[in-house]
Amino acid sequence: MPPNVHTASVSRHVFWSLALICVLVSSGSPAAEQQSWRELNPENTVFVEMPEGLVIIELNPAFAPETVKQFKQLTEDHFYDGLSFYRVIDGFVAQGGDGSDLGELSNISLLDAEFEIDWKEEFNYMHVQSPDMFAPETGIIDGFSVARDPSRDKVWLTHCPGIVAMARNDDPDSSRTDFYIVIGQAPRYLDRNMNIFGRVVYGMDVVQRIKRGPILSNGIIQDETESSRIAKMLLLSEFPEEDRLKVYVVDTNNEGFKKLLKDRLNRKQKFFHNKPPKVLDVCQVPVAGRITK
Amino acid sequence: MPPNVHTASVSRHVFWSLALICVLVSSGSPAAEQQSWRELNPENTVFVEMPEGLVIIELNPAFAPETVKQFKQLTEDHFYDGLSFYRVIDGFVAQGGDGSDLGELSNISLLDAEFEIDWKEEFNYMHVQSPDMFAPETGIIDGFSVARDPSRDKVWLTHCPGIVAMARNDDPDSSRTDFYIVIGQAPRYLDRNMNIFGRVVYGMDVVQRIKRGPILSNGIIQDETESSRIAKMLLLSEFPEEDRLKVYVVDTNNEGFKKLLKDRLNRKQKFFHNKPPKVLDVCQVPVAGRITK
Repeated sequence: MPPNVHTASVSRHVFWSLALICVLVSSGSPAAEQQSWRELNPENTVFVEMPEGLVIIELNPAFAPETVKQFKQLTEDHFYDGLSFYRVIDGFVAQGGDGSDLGELSNISLLDAEFEIDWKEEFNYMHVQSPDMFAPETGIIDGFSVARDPSRDKVWLTHCPGIVAMARNDDPDSSRTDFYIVIGQAPRYLDRNMNIFGRVVYGMDVVQRIKRGPILSNGIIQDETESSRIAKMLLLSEFPEEDRLKVYVVDTNNEGFKKLLKDRLNRKQKFFHNKPPKVLDVCQVPVAGRITK
Repeated sequence: MPPNVHTASVSRHVFWSLALICVLVSSGSPAAEQQSWRELNPENTVFVEMPEGLVIIELNPAFAPETVKQFKQLTEDHFYDGLSFYRVIDGFVAQGGDGSDLGELSNISLLDAEFEIDWKEEFNYMHVQSPDMFAPETGIIDGFSVARDPSRDKVWLTHCPGIVAMARNDDPDSSRTDFYIVIGQAPRYLDRNMNIFGRVVYGMDVVQRIKRGPILSNGIIQDETESSRIAKMLLLSEFPEEDRLKVYVVDTNNEGFKKLLKDRLNRKQKFFHNKPPKVLDVCQVPVAGRITK
């Protein structure tokens, strides 16, 4: 018989176990409910309206100031409206834009590399894992997963699912308009090689419905009518103030979040017959988002 | 202008760079084309037919013999036909079945834990990474990602995207009928705690279209008419021989695949302005599948 939650009174062990395990995957989990939330700045919040649904991206000007500046300008110019995700590889990335990286002529400026930045003591840094497989150390700054190399005093955004970055060719300074969203297992080998400038804070389920390209053509969707398309891209600040949704993400800069990380590192639930090693994959610490009227 | 691959003659650098980077993500990539393929045994190949499309699972009796035996029997009995994915958390798992783990009465036998097995020298083992963050060592055996602890002579299947495992409650021996597919960043902390018994070799894009549950109810889809449903589940061996599709996966037990792993570990492409560390995430080594008439 298919499950019916109203009659399922005996046991919810499995699911609660899973829910406890995933902790912040769901903002509805008990753990997430205990968290405090931070409202996003409408100037750095992008609404991507698609037939599949609404996707919301938080921009990160602290790590990629010039990329964010240009992306915001393009958004305000309605540059992306009507463009499609033209190369989509399941388990890897969904790449959208005007295809200028394919050689289409473009008069939009090339961007310099914004791969990493100098460490600053004043960052709202929450330590996650040391050592990580790909970096001396990982953490979270204002909801964004980062890696850090204290020996060089550098810090960078990591390629976790949901991050948004600019495509480029072999030249590190060749990003322009086309961007991709990571939709599969974190391709961390791309870290420190791409201009990561935002992350999806709402609607990753929508992103996962973006039409994939055929694997035999490397994800390129040849028939444009089949691709998933951006109906409209808007900064939240462009909406009249009275119509704006409010967008929140879990605040990662407090003791409550620190405790969550600790609980994930040291899993005490009875569910774990074999206790997991005390390590945390920074890309397995999702930071939930939610919207309200 | 939206991209048009027929007129895009100037440069495909970005995409080729991405394609080279992802290597085996796409079976159409040059690297994958150089690989040899292994045909799956129809007795261990499950077709999950859904309105969203076809999903194909390869079962792994070597690692979870009793789980595979029961799952095959349930499939042959048409047990799963018409059941739904009733709890689906984006970025984590899609759980389907009859909901017996929610407390629905069931006369299906409980399964003993099949969390890890003894190491055998005769395994077709291809080494990937040592040390891995979650295990002393990772590798691939016959297309399945595994972790290994040489000090205990044990080996187990790892929670990578696309793996299929049985749900359970706190009791390690409480799996029955409900199963889940990992749809997000590898939840490796679940390793050695669940009966992993298969992996999706075809149709992960379809799996990614499975309807997500609302986060406020921990992924439970309360309205059954809204959930994604299994129309039919069949062993490939149940189809008349003349009608059978052939299912292939990349053969991971040869020098060609070994070279691919080496190339991923030591990325020499000009694209990498900052050379990535020489480490490989075992869940970032997808092993492609394909079907033919």
